[in-house]
Amino acid sequence: MIYFRSDYSQGAHPHILDALIRTNEEHTDGYALDAHSEHAAQMIKDMIGRQDCEVYMMVGGTPTNIITTAAALKPWEAAVAPRTAHIYTHECGALEATGHRVITMDGVDGKLTPELIDKAWLEYEDDHTVIPRLAYISHTTETGTVYTKAELQALRKCCDEHDMLLYLDGARLGAGLTCEDTDLTIRDIAQLTDAFYIGGTKNGLLLGEAVVIFNDYMNDHYRWMIKQKNGMLAKGRLIGVQFEALLEGGEDSVFYQIGRHENAMAKKLREGIEAAGYSFDGNSRTNQLFPILPEPLVRELEKDFFFYDWAPAENGCRVIRLVTSWGTTEDDVNAFIQALHK
Amino acid sequence: MIYFRSDYSQGAHPHILDALIRTNEEHTDGYALDAHSEHAAQMIKDMIGRQDCEVYMMVGGTPTNIITTAAALKPWEAAVAPRTAHIYTHECGALEATGHRVITMDGVDGKLTPELIDKAWLEYEDDHTVIPRLAYISHTTETGTVYTKAELQALRKCCDEHDMLLYLDGARLGAGLTCEDTDLTIRDIAQLTDAFYIGGTKNGLLLGEAVVIFNDYMNDHYRWMIKQKNGMLAKGRLIGVQFEALLEGGEDSVFYQIGRHENAMAKKLREGIEAAGYSFDGNSRTNQLFPILPEPLVRELEKDFFFYDWAPAENGCRVIRLVTSWGTTEDDVNAFIQALHK
Amino acid sequence: MIYFRSDYSQGAHPHILDALIRTNEEHTDGYALDAHSEHAAQMIKDMIGRQDCEVYMMVGGTPTNIITTAAALKPWEAAVAPRTAHIYTHECGALEATGHRVITMDGVDGKLTPELIDKAWLEYEDDHTVIPRLAYISHTTETGTVYTKAELQALRKCCDEHDMLLYLDGARLGAGLTCEDTDLTIRDIAQLTDAFYIGGTKNGLLLGEAVVIFNDYMNDHYRWMIKQKNGMLAKGRLIGVQFEALLEGGEDSVFYQIGRHENAMAKKLREGIEAAGYSFDGNSRTNQLFPILPEPLVRELEKDFFFYDWAPAENGCRVIRLVTSWGTTEDDVNAFIQALHK
Amino acid sequence: MIYFRSDYSQGAHPHILDALIRTNEEHTDGYALDAHSEHAAQMIKDMIGRQDCEVYMMVGGTPTNIITTAAALKPWEAAVAPRTAHIYTHECGALEATGHRVITMDGVDGKLTPELIDKAWLEYEDDHTVIPRLAYISHTTETGTVYTKAELQALRKCCDEHDMLLYLDGARLGAGLTCEDTDLTIRDIAQLTDAFYIGGTKNGLLLGEAVVIFNDYMNDHYRWMIKQKNGMLAKGRLIGVQFEALLEGGEDSVFYQIGRHENAMAKKLREGIEAAGYSFDGNSRTNQLFPILPEPLVRELEKDFFFYDWAPAENGCRVIRLVTSWGTTEDDVNAFIQALHK
Repeated sequence: MIYFRSDYSQGAHPHILDALIRTNEEHTDGYALDAHSEHAAQMIKDMIGRQDCEVYMMVGGTPTNIITTAAALKPWEAAVAPRTAHIYTHECGALEATGHRVITMDGVDGKLTPELIDKAWLEYEDDHTVIPRLAYISHTTETGTVYTKAELQALRKCCDEHDMLLYLDGARLGAGLTCEDTDLTIRDIAQLTDAFYIGGTKNGLLLGEAVVIFNDYMNDHYRWMIKQKNGMLAKGRLIGVQFEALLEGGEDSVFYQIGRHENAMAKKLREGIEAAGYSFDGNSRTNQLFPILPEPLVRELEKDFFFYDWAPAENGCRVIRLVTSWGTTEDDVNAFIQALHK
Repeated sequence: MIYFRSDYSQGAHPHILDALIRTNEEHTDGYALDAHSEHAAQMIKDMIGRQDCEVYMMVGGTPTNIITTAAALKPWEAAVAPRTAHIYTHECGALEATGHRVITMDGVDGKLTPELIDKAWLEYEDDHTVIPRLAYISHTTETGTVYTKAELQALRKCCDEHDMLLYLDGARLGAGLTCEDTDLTIRDIAQLTDAFYIGGTKNGLLLGEAVVIFNDYMNDHYRWMIKQKNGMLAKGRLIGVQFEALLEGGEDSVFYQIGRHENAMAKKLREGIEAAGYSFDGNSRTNQLFPILPEPLVRELEKDFFFYDWAPAENGCRVIRLVTSWGTTEDDVNAFIQALHK
Repeated sequence: MIYFRSDYSQGAHPHILDALIRTNEEHTDGYALDAHSEHAAQMIKDMIGRQDCEVYMMVGGTPTNIITTAAALKPWEAAVAPRTAHIYTHECGALEATGHRVITMDGVDGKLTPELIDKAWLEYEDDHTVIPRLAYISHTTETGTVYTKAELQALRKCCDEHDMLLYLDGARLGAGLTCEDTDLTIRDIAQLTDAFYIGGTKNGLLLGEAVVIFNDYMNDHYRWMIKQKNGMLAKGRLIGVQFEALLEGGEDSVFYQIGRHENAMAKKLREGIEAAGYSFDGNSRTNQLFPILPEPLVRELEKDFFFYDWAPAENGCRVIRLVTSWGTTEDDVNAFIQALHK
Repeated sequence: MIYFRSDYSQGAHPHILDALIRTNEEHTDGYALDAHSEHAAQMIKDMIGRQDCEVYMMVGGTPTNIITTAAALKPWEAAVAPRTAHIYTHECGALEATGHRVITMDGVDGKLTPELIDKAWLEYEDDHTVIPRLAYISHTTETGTVYTKAELQALRKCCDEHDMLLYLDGARLGAGLTCEDTDLTIRDIAQLTDAFYIGGTKNGLLLGEAVVIFNDYMNDHYRWMIKQKNGMLAKGRLIGVQFEALLEGGEDSVFYQIGRHENAMAKKLREGIEAAGYSFDGNSRTNQLFPILPEPLVRELEKDFFFYDWAPAENGCRVIRLVTSWGTTEDDVNAFIQALHK
């Protein structure tokens, strides 16, 4: 069985695993209050070119989204997000469970726009209405699309006009930053958002994300929120150790290597699927692809390949989701393409 | 610096780490829906002698306590716990953050008793009052003490009389089960509680706990609660893989080995401290010790040893906390004892 | 200043006020555990032709919606409602503040349909997704429209297919039941929903609603939910006393009289506005009207009439909201119509 | 049946009812945004001698406690209260339902002291612990006792030292202020607290309390909290109208008259009970009394009097609770005293 199921179906990238093995028997203090976590945080501050922030080692993507958003919002405030946003579609109502609404707007290619934020504000009246306070976006989005620098600048401007915070979910930030279709850099993101995270789980780590927060109110007692919302890892240094290994080397770091590899494998896969005469749902140029295939072919492919059977499509077809990962090989891709021609 | 800080200051026990390394490049489905997690669950069912339960791979102790308790309680229901309980003292109000009160009673040596539960019920009146629904205990307790089988049977009987659920926090279950002062076995616990967990984080794993739930209402949609409360791990198989390695071998498994080692190291430490003329706060016979030492001595010890400066005591003394772990060596213990005599 | 602001701008209908005056110095037990509240509940059971339910005296509309919905939902469950629903637009995120999502669908004329519920279910996947469990509708809706019996039957059928509960917000039930455009009776509603309420605040009471619940799970500990969610009134008999007076007399009761009066005044108003050449936003045939008027005219009208300036419209027009009430007179209506012609 | 059940067993004091009748057919804007509510607020500001505050018309005592406390606390913060506090004993976990812990301390005669607050802080550690942020007291307390000015000053000083807010629940403020055992005035309370409320429900109103808030953070978006937490009354002017009538006349107002009457009736009752040879639980000098009577006598009294059978006492006795109200007559009191001698 060849896996295109997700970018979290294997353990750690070998380079990351080595770091864990090497440091395994060290004694450190718990809860990410250790030298590795501090060092990883400093590496990130240097990498993004800003020192006026706090960096926290987080256990996973959903905890990072929820804790960060909940830390930003007062009881009467809400987040605005595309209807396809992870925070709305795949976190089992976790934000609402902290008491906050996700105001959903029908996104454009999975993305939020200034126009959509303005539209969300039309629903606001007075003390009978929640206040839109935080815009949630992701890069790459749930549908594999990416923001450009101009798009992110426009969102920043719009948020400033509405006194809103801008938060970027970077679960697949590696794939986003190395995508050829966008000029957006991590330094841009650090300039234009109030908080974002560098995804580790979907980028070669056993687990862990690093969230960067520029906003003082969010940083105030953020660690209390981590603990209260189930996100505090006892052996927190595990995340610090992994990020040290992930990020060392700058543009040549494993972080960027994995992003480039994932996108390269996806490109090859995309071209093979197109060459076989099939089209795609959406416009992903990153490591998630959504080909539209005849249902009998899908059933045949499922015998040898593991992927998500995503959604119904017209004319007896199905949309499936294929994801490439650090461990995806050219052989995996070739096997899939050949299987399309059987 | 020698660490008696906690039982989570190192990485994984070598046997556990080997299992992670060995399985690292396997592809599996995410979210603990994999063969390793299923196998670990089955091993646990066999170990406890009950098949009529569900076993879930959990990311940490606080998430396990909170998700399990929240899954048990309806909005008008509350937990009863000793005032020293982890759920009250060290989880930053996480249970209240899910909407539920922790009714605290002044425990007896860190333990809950039927009399204390009865006393909690005296505060109940009618629809103006929350209903005590779940009794929270831990084994070992926060103060290192343990329950006997007779004590647990008495709590079970009391809970039945009040139509209450009984939940046992097993963060340090290994140390509890191998403590010579109690006859309580894991099979007893499985017979007498509605839910309990086998702690991994404090027993040699990188991270992870395995919670066992016998109650149908709690099992209903428990995985939705895991996801909603930030406890779902993408690479969930990591926990399954570690529990397979931890538990294989029955009484000779690494799980029991670590418990016995921790207690043996603690016993040696305790005897050395007593021989040096010092007494203890509480009656721990497990891997947490709370010696009462003169403050100048504490300040001296802090130069070479890392431990918690726990609480003030009388006559210019301090209570400190010493914890032994899988990695604690006889040399570590001897060094500490010698330092008492300097 | 003539008020078309709302149906809650005056005190109580004189008949209701008399009942309060007459019973003022009686001593009763608190919290709606009194003979008046019990009698009012029994009157309602007889009126709807069902005895297999519980009736609760509630303090207001938002508390009734929130407490009833929260009593129905488990943590992983959500409500489905039109995007215009009161529970979404005018309760300041109160349902989310209890931990539950409102899944919004773009309603048809302010109404929910089976197709929209089916569409909401397309977003459901697995333990990463909340479960749609309760359909929220109102009669009249926020836009003044009404359901027919056939429409409500279709919703019931759809809810049964999805194992969902159906809840009807009756803040303006009097106007709904007396609307000539629908055949829906209160006995139909009692047969087809799991819970609904008879609105008092907007139908001549000082305050108070009576909620009728057929579902056992919702009735279980519902009074605990009332107390916990701030809805318990100490002098609860005030609501019972008012409902006794409101409902006595069956079809000739003040309840129905007020509904008929409101709709009659609205009809006269509507015809006058149409005769003056203006059209409406939406199709309300009840006591809320949404005429579209030129902005200069709106500004002129505001000098003598108090109403909501509702929303922008095309061609320099505004949508305004006019509401008739038990105290609206023919003179009020005539004055408004004449003002259109100035 | 003669009622000593509570101070909310009748409707409104006749003077209050008259005001409601007189203003009944006025049209006003809803949600306490009307001239009566504004006037009542200004009367209160003048009465307490401070203009630097906001005054809100609230629907009841529990909503006022919960909304005010929740408006003060961030997710990681908690309230400190005596174990007997209304917020802990009779609000069905409503504060925990907003996500916040009530840290309970064993009060001294139902009261909180600086020593108890200091003791609560001993449990605080770091980001694993909630932060005590608001001290909750009531005047009179749940057991009928009162604070002196010196006691309140000491609490203020202690709160300042811990950067804590001080909130006073005034459900029975009228009885507290007119109690001869204390020198505490409403102007003192306004100087020494961050928020307090003037109870109406238990002091002659149909319903309603007026909360006074000096703290900017609490005032920020407080009305959003009222709405979200089910406390917004559509016909909010009802509370304003009643407070206008309650407070007019200063020291001779109905507010103070009722307090004096309640305490006078209670004093007469207390002296009669003492003369009959019975003692009391606690030291109440206000309108709640807790006599200790033989159980057979209690059962006999229940035939003619309605009161709370409060708690078991020693030697076959029961503690009962007797409450005097604006409607309690000398005849009622004499009848009870005579019944003790039968």
